[in-house]
Amino acid sequence: LSGPSLFADWGTTARRAWLVGRNGETLRSIEDDRGMTALGPEDWSAAFEQLKQGLGSPEPERSLLAGMVGSRQGWRETPYLRCPVGIDRLAAALVRIDAEAAIVPGVSFVAGDTADVMRGEETQVLGAVAAGLAPPDCLACLPGTHTKWVVVRGGLIVTFRTVMTGELFAAIGALATLAPLLGEPASEGADFTAGLDRGLAGDPLTAELFAVRAHALLGTGRIGNGAAYLSGLLIGADLRAGLGLADDAIVEVIGRSDLAGLYRSAIERMGRAARTIDGASAALAGLKRIAELAP
Amino acid sequence: LSGPSLFADWGTTARRAWLVGRNGETLRSIEDDRGMTALGPEDWSAAFEQLKQGLGSPEPERSLLAGMVGSRQGWRETPYLRCPVGIDRLAAALVRIDAEAAIVPGVSFVAGDTADVMRGEETQVLGAVAAGLAPPDCLACLPGTHTKWVVVRGGLIVTFRTVMTGELFAAIGALATLAPLLGEPASEGADFTAGLDRGLAGDPLTAELFAVRAHALLGTGRIGNGAAYLSGLLIGADLRAGLGLADDAIVEVIGRSDLAGLYRSAIERMGRAARTIDGASAALAGLKRIAELAP
Repeated sequence: LSGPSLFADWGTTARRAWLVGRNGETLRSIEDDRGMTALGPEDWSAAFEQLKQGLGSPEPERSLLAGMVGSRQGWRETPYLRCPVGIDRLAAALVRIDAEAAIVPGVSFVAGDTADVMRGEETQVLGAVAAGLAPPDCLACLPGTHTKWVVVRGGLIVTFRTVMTGELFAAIGALATLAPLLGEPASEGADFTAGLDRGLAGDPLTAELFAVRAHALLGTGRIGNGAAYLSGLLIGADLRAGLGLADDAIVEVIGRSDLAGLYRSAIERMGRAARTIDGASAALAGLKRIAELAP
Repeated sequence: LSGPSLFADWGTTARRAWLVGRNGETLRSIEDDRGMTALGPEDWSAAFEQLKQGLGSPEPERSLLAGMVGSRQGWRETPYLRCPVGIDRLAAALVRIDAEAAIVPGVSFVAGDTADVMRGEETQVLGAVAAGLAPPDCLACLPGTHTKWVVVRGGLIVTFRTVMTGELFAAIGALATLAPLLGEPASEGADFTAGLDRGLAGDPLTAELFAVRAHALLGTGRIGNGAAYLSGLLIGADLRAGLGLADDAIVEVIGRSDLAGLYRSAIERMGRAARTIDGASAALAGLKRIAELAP
């Protein structure tokens, strides 16, 4: 390759993109809100041109895109590769947009009544492993709108589970019953921990939520920051679903630093260790490695 | 009393009202959507006048109102009576609007970190008991936006728990991730049962929801009616929270017949019996009995 490469993690609500030189150095990067939900079916090509312009490289040598850009509502639908999946299989199954650009496939897990899918997280997780940020046998947690818990064995994604923590947090925070009580931002502290312990305890979420309102109406003073309590409750439930997938002593938390911090302290409360890995670094590492392996 | 009495169950989104003659016979009844959310703080008095006109009785001998009409956002705030509470205490603690009209207080439960409140359901549950529709020792389930599970011992409400099943069902059904998959109405059948079993099994709701989408994306055919599955999932979680409150062999399900039917079949699946009681009849029985007992 003589020219630079364009790599993008193009998701539901945001996209991150990097222009990378021949020696792997990042020449320029962009992060913006031109994710899938901001784009109609006809907008992708123009949004990609605008991305290349923004990176100062109208004609990169090659482009590799991962995430919801490959979904049915994305630019070009890519298949789901069924677990177990290593990074070499991702590279071998790229779906080409044209001679220059391609999209990374997603990953699925199906067993009996269980079914799950991911797009984008496979690139982050296997990228973290490829770059030595996470070991080839690990339990990874990618917190967010749809938290993913991913079990990696011998460098292969063998199983994973999606927990709709962030999407439910937003929806619950907008409920008529609770919205007036959730004014402050969620933060660590006693209310977060109290919610966390309730979430970990295993009673249904629907049965725990009303307590936020009842405590406020009765003026018990037990819940000060309702948003922190709710955040703890949902993260507790998230951990209850995720930590059961594998008993690795260390959990690799891949994501934004603020959210990764909340998850790390929650995981530590459960008696496991947690290591945080920057989500953007993991995505870029994955895209680079896939590009190297691509036929 | 020489003239008729007006009784109303005036809730969050709906109100039901009855004009009752001296011998207890219902002369006229109304059910409409002029609940609390349809009314501003200044609208209650006019809405009450309009209700009396609608019942053909501009000047009833007395009026007794139960439900959210007594909340902070209602017409006149009434206190919460702390459990245990029998129907005589409700009657002794009425809050008067004027010489003619009064509102039934709510009920609270506080113990350690647990707090809960109800307004309206106390009248239905204790009304059902007063009318002999339910025994004085029972576990009652009032399904709805906020399902209430109520333990009655010796004719007293001793503890209860709120589960936000209906409110979450609506909020989850509106999520961008799931809404397109929930077009059909929820109904009994294989998908309801599959969701019910998952909800009863105890994994977090946030971890179960994404399966609806994953099965659809992968075309597994395992979930046909997503709304029925979601309904089963939430009702399963509801039962998991409520049935643990007391081990009564028969559960008294008080409410609308469609919802009561879904709950009855779910409860029977858990090896308990269920009896359904019409919610309106229970409310009217409670209001009548409170009026008899009122000082």
